[in-house]
Amino acid sequence: MTTVYQHGTLAQLMAKQMAGTITVGELLTHGDTGIGTLDGLDGEVIILNGDVYQADSTGAVNHITDKETTLPFASVHFDQPDISYQLPFNATTYQNLSSQLTEKQIDNVFSALKLHGHFTHVHVRVAPKQTKPYPSLLTVAQHQPEFETRDVQGTLVGYYAPAVFGGATAAGWHLHFLADDHKFAGHVLDFEADDMVGSLLIFDEFEQHLPIDNHDFRAMKQDMAGLQDGIEASEGGRK
Amino acid sequence: MTTVYQHGTLAQLMAKQMAGTITVGELLTHGDTGIGTLDGLDGEVIILNGDVYQADSTGAVNHITDKETTLPFASVHFDQPDISYQLPFNATTYQNLSSQLTEKQIDNVFSALKLHGHFTHVHVRVAPKQTKPYPSLLTVAQHQPEFETRDVQGTLVGYYAPAVFGGATAAGWHLHFLADDHKFAGHVLDFEADDMVGSLLIFDEFEQHLPIDNHDFRAMKQDMAGLQDGIEASEGGRK
Repeated sequence: MTTVYQHGTLAQLMAKQMAGTITVGELLTHGDTGIGTLDGLDGEVIILNGDVYQADSTGAVNHITDKETTLPFASVHFDQPDISYQLPFNATTYQNLSSQLTEKQIDNVFSALKLHGHFTHVHVRVAPKQTKPYPSLLTVAQHQPEFETRDVQGTLVGYYAPAVFGGATAAGWHLHFLADDHKFAGHVLDFEADDMVGSLLIFDEFEQHLPIDNHDFRAMKQDMAGLQDGIEASEGGRK
Repeated sequence: MTTVYQHGTLAQLMAKQMAGTITVGELLTHGDTGIGTLDGLDGEVIILNGDVYQADSTGAVNHITDKETTLPFASVHFDQPDISYQLPFNATTYQNLSSQLTEKQIDNVFSALKLHGHFTHVHVRVAPKQTKPYPSLLTVAQHQPEFETRDVQGTLVGYYAPAVFGGATAAGWHLHFLADDHKFAGHVLDFEADDMVGSLLIFDEFEQHLPIDNHDFRAMKQDMAGLQDGIEASEGGRK
């Protein structure tokens, strides 16, 4: 059994529920690799080998060592290179990522991608921390810093989700990036790489955890109309 | 932790994937209570206390004892009355079910409902078994037998899912019925009951299992346009 664990939903961020509802400590019991955001939609989280990093909206990258730090939304899994497809790529861009994986037939399943190598260009955005009363994710998405870098060694990590799970999570790709020197990171809008190795892990289980003890989550009004468009506008990278 | 386990998705039935991909034996390791359908969309399954019953399209109810019987789609959980809300209802209809549960704030969470008692009226439909090449769930839904009965003792069992998970599963209520004498069962379109007791169990986890080793599932084309309308037409009871 291979499982990707998700706490919270993208839809709940659209419905203005951005308070942290799981601790880093608890999250790490479900995986050592993944992505997310901190309490208040504070930045972009990248988890590698059980270490948690956060890109903040100033462009800085912080090592999060306090296990009591909370997150409203995160996806993690245990990296299992022995049962993953090994992926040597000579040259790859976000635009042709899916087409290079066609033979793996990933359209209808959840999978994790982890690629390390040399990137000629990486373009990210970083969500800025919000305070109560929280705005919608869509409002935040319209005002968030973007950063670009060239010629950098780093790791691309994230997930592919089938279209039918859009809303609960990001349909298609949702990738974050962390430079090896920890000086650049974020939610990937675009990339070009010329030499990468890594792995694709296909999951048979999507374990969706919800913050059922959070009063605001229980009481939220989920506006379904426009949810997909809003998420696309907020979370979309190239597909 | 409270978990509802689902094998397969409603969306996959819409995409003509109706072959059984989990055995009854495997399914029962994830719960002793639930609902589903057999290989080929063959009828309506009700699981109570680890016993599996199937209403078939002739209106008969069969006790499924062969653990190798397979299902393309099913949801199960372990009944846990000690941590469930106890629900005495004097008079209830499908139409006012949600309004009677307003104070439980179930809109944004997964929950299971199990109610036993006296029903003055139950109206069900039963999916007829399909053979390959499978049609769409929507096509099947347009040609399926309906049955009604009055003055019957039985159990209503099924799930509530948040709107954002519509597609993966049925948004809102998805309830099946089994008469105590095992002579009437099916997917509930409507009911009226005058004396029921039972329980509502709220889950913090939705464990979605996918048949990743099934070639047809991996290769299916999921037509997202019209999926919600198709599911509503196929699976909707009163909401």
